[in-house]
Amino acid sequence: MSTSVTQVAAYAAPAPKAPLERTTVPRRPVGEHDVLIEIKYAGICHSDLHQVAEDWGQALFPMVPGHEIAGVVTAVGSGVTKYVLGDRVGVGCFVDSCRTCENCLAGDEQFCASGMTATYPSAPDGSATYGGYSTHIVVDENYTLRIPEGIALDEAAPLLCAGITLYSPLRRWNAGPGKKVAVVGMGGLGHIGVKIAHALGAEVTVLSQSLRKQEDGLRLGADHFHATSDPETFTKLAGSFDLIVNTVSATIDLDAYLGLLRTNGTLANVGAPGEPTPVGMFSLIVGNKTLAGSMIGGIAETQEMLDFCAAHGIGSEIETIAVDQINEAYERLAAGDVRYRFVIDTATFATR
Amino acid sequence: MSTSVTQVAAYAAPAPKAPLERTTVPRRPVGEHDVLIEIKYAGICHSDLHQVAEDWGQALFPMVPGHEIAGVVTAVGSGVTKYVLGDRVGVGCFVDSCRTCENCLAGDEQFCASGMTATYPSAPDGSATYGGYSTHIVVDENYTLRIPEGIALDEAAPLLCAGITLYSPLRRWNAGPGKKVAVVGMGGLGHIGVKIAHALGAEVTVLSQSLRKQEDGLRLGADHFHATSDPETFTKLAGSFDLIVNTVSATIDLDAYLGLLRTNGTLANVGAPGEPTPVGMFSLIVGNKTLAGSMIGGIAETQEMLDFCAAHGIGSEIETIAVDQINEAYERLAAGDVRYRFVIDTATFATR
Repeated sequence: MSTSVTQVAAYAAPAPKAPLERTTVPRRPVGEHDVLIEIKYAGICHSDLHQVAEDWGQALFPMVPGHEIAGVVTAVGSGVTKYVLGDRVGVGCFVDSCRTCENCLAGDEQFCASGMTATYPSAPDGSATYGGYSTHIVVDENYTLRIPEGIALDEAAPLLCAGITLYSPLRRWNAGPGKKVAVVGMGGLGHIGVKIAHALGAEVTVLSQSLRKQEDGLRLGADHFHATSDPETFTKLAGSFDLIVNTVSATIDLDAYLGLLRTNGTLANVGAPGEPTPVGMFSLIVGNKTLAGSMIGGIAETQEMLDFCAAHGIGSEIETIAVDQINEAYERLAAGDVRYRFVIDTATFATR
Repeated sequence: MSTSVTQVAAYAAPAPKAPLERTTVPRRPVGEHDVLIEIKYAGICHSDLHQVAEDWGQALFPMVPGHEIAGVVTAVGSGVTKYVLGDRVGVGCFVDSCRTCENCLAGDEQFCASGMTATYPSAPDGSATYGGYSTHIVVDENYTLRIPEGIALDEAAPLLCAGITLYSPLRRWNAGPGKKVAVVGMGGLGHIGVKIAHALGAEVTVLSQSLRKQEDGLRLGADHFHATSDPETFTKLAGSFDLIVNTVSATIDLDAYLGLLRTNGTLANVGAPGEPTPVGMFSLIVGNKTLAGSMIGGIAETQEMLDFCAAHGIGSEIETIAVDQINEAYERLAAGDVRYRFVIDTATFATR
């Protein structure tokens, strides 16, 4: 694999809402600043389901999802300085950006003014990009992350999206010693939030629909676990938290959750229901409260997250599947039946 | 006026929605830590109209509104250490709090866990308190502010509510050199926001319904002035501001205003419509944006604001009225017909 376009094995949705099927897709030649990554594992993110279903607007098909990629460098361009053959690397939600706009220069490449080049389904110019449900990917070294020793590649893959999605708001809003942090939703995002918030030194509470995952939550580092289906939770915990990170994509009662915040507290949303959500201004004004949004993180912050996770022994809780189990995994994920992230073992491209 | 309750002249609403009329109300004896203040000026805040109309729930009548009080100390209790006779002082929205809860200890007395004692209409125990439309008031020295030389008392009065309402979010969200700040609404609150944001060194834009007040806005320190009734404003200024302070109490299109923020920007609301307002989570998530609320400020921050305003020659733009013009002023304020704050000259209690 060098100067010519190569076809690689992949799993793709041929059309909106269609089941994924095995196919091949092209990967560009390894350019001067590119690395060729042999993908070892690819996480299945809930947004993969949304993209395939075109829930977020028209997309491009065939679509190879996957933006939680962990693998090994197997070729480098002549100008590559950051990586050598054999390096353990990851790729997240984007693989390029303009590098010159205010946001890119500030390290917020995910908000590139020209639009980031998504790992899939497309670049800002409309050309297709293909994600991680595949054996190989070619990525600019500057949009490639290093996965430190100390995190297994399979457990690292989901950190590239779920990990940074939680790490960024937890850091921005100062989760740490002396702070009471709640994580709403104990799924693929939330369970990593519990681990990171705990490692940051915060007192961590899980707010989950039921107590079904209580044992897991406490094992992963939560100090407390409450069911949001119990109305008493909202009276008992009123005014408790410095920070609440909401990972639930369904519409929640924002005023009820704002009521759980202490003075000057923040409710940070990383889940995104499509419908507008009503919020009472008095819920924000009384107590100087803040409702924030947060979307993944830039390259430098994502590297910081990986280094932090390695230092604290944090990986995702995963259920590893073979490539021919992807459609089944989609159904189970849609039903909330996974503890806590499906990861595709791409070695099974060779065996199934 | 010493150890016994004294009756003082005041203007009160005898019943909900009723016109205000001249009456007398009791003031408590000057206690050990109290100061007796001869009120010189009292600002008319829009919330006075809401309280008289019981827009915010059942209140207590007769009601003497007024929480923008400027005057002079004319008696002090034996334990008073901060003030001496003749000192120029102010009183804002509250006159006491528990002093022991987390919020009081943090200097956020306005969010006292036991409820602050409002300057009017009542204390947490339900007993009546009477505001600034009066000749005198007795206040604990710890809830009394010093009005520095350099601000005229009449122009200082509105700072006790309107001033701190704008100062607090401008400081919290780092208005200053290199920051682009928009103030939505150019009324009693907004016009002071323009002055303070300008004095803090920010580049200031007014977003007003029309260009009617443009000349005033630029004179008070705004660098730019745009009409929100012009839809082009929202395309032209997309992604422009680090901070928007919204002073409008009517419901606004939050998503449209969030679209005016730069990455990591904040929309801080100090106006409070009664109805819940819809907000799209994508408007917050894309760009890591923040929707915040802010309610006045604590005692220490209010003093800091007064000192800042004195150092920068900032007072409110006022229209001074006599006590018998209060009802007319209410009508004009409800119609938005004031530039920019009515201030009652309490000397007119003696002459009208």
